[in-house]
Amino acid sequence: MNATSSASADAVLERIRFTDTGLVPAIVQQWDTREVLMMGWMDAEAFRRTMSEGRVTFWSRSRQEYWRKGDTSGHVQYVKGVALDCDGDTLLVTVEQIGAACHTGTRTCFDADVLQPVVGESRELEATDL
Amino acid sequence: MNATSSASADAVLERIRFTDTGLVPAIVQQWDTREVLMMGWMDAEAFRRTMSEGRVTFWSRSRQEYWRKGDTSGHVQYVKGVALDCDGDTLLVTVEQIGAACHTGTRTCFDADVLQPVVGESRELEATDL
Repeated sequence: MNATSSASADAVLERIRFTDTGLVPAIVQQWDTREVLMMGWMDAEAFRRTMSEGRVTFWSRSRQEYWRKGDTSGHVQYVKGVALDCDGDTLLVTVEQIGAACHTGTRTCFDADVLQPVVGESRELEATDL
Repeated sequence: MNATSSASADAVLERIRFTDTGLVPAIVQQWDTREVLMMGWMDAEAFRRTMSEGRVTFWSRSRQEYWRKGDTSGHVQYVKGVALDCDGDTLLVTVEQIGAACHTGTRTCFDADVLQPVVGESRELEATDL
């Protein structure tokens, strides 16, 4: 971590509104295709590491440990950009995802359980429905 | 709500892992440009409404009430698709966003506070950096 990025991360930490358990949700998006890959959680230290290492690190709530994406799977997430939302309680991390983002082996964590909502009412929208 | 969508929403509810306070985070994405617009929270009833009304409804944690996006601002979110993630604790809602998604007036809630992380190490990635 260089001095600038360290200072930057620390300044941002003061703006992040962590949950009562000290976490903030991080949406992870592939930078070019803009696929939403997954959502994970970060504590202050996982955020610092993500800001400084060029790799995404989460806090695993189930395992209660840091989890640098790809260290065991090889499915690395290289950091391309990070943004904090308007009320400081959600992060958006854009990445270059190597291989599958999902531990089940699918590209994203949202590929397997696609639901069937009633789509929006606008007739124009229905005509161009995906 | 028709019988099919009602049954579908109820079946899905059994798969959703709500937090201790009965909520699930919902990432909202513009269906065509794939911009990540915002993240909100839904309880079971907000989820049912979102699945059945063609409009996105959240549970407002700050106001402790249902909040159908656009009812006061006009910035409606028409539902295009909904997916549940691999471990059942995050929703991805694709929408047609009318106007600004963010209450501050910006298109997305992630436009205003863009951070400066160290980007991923791969030289190839740096060459194509955004």
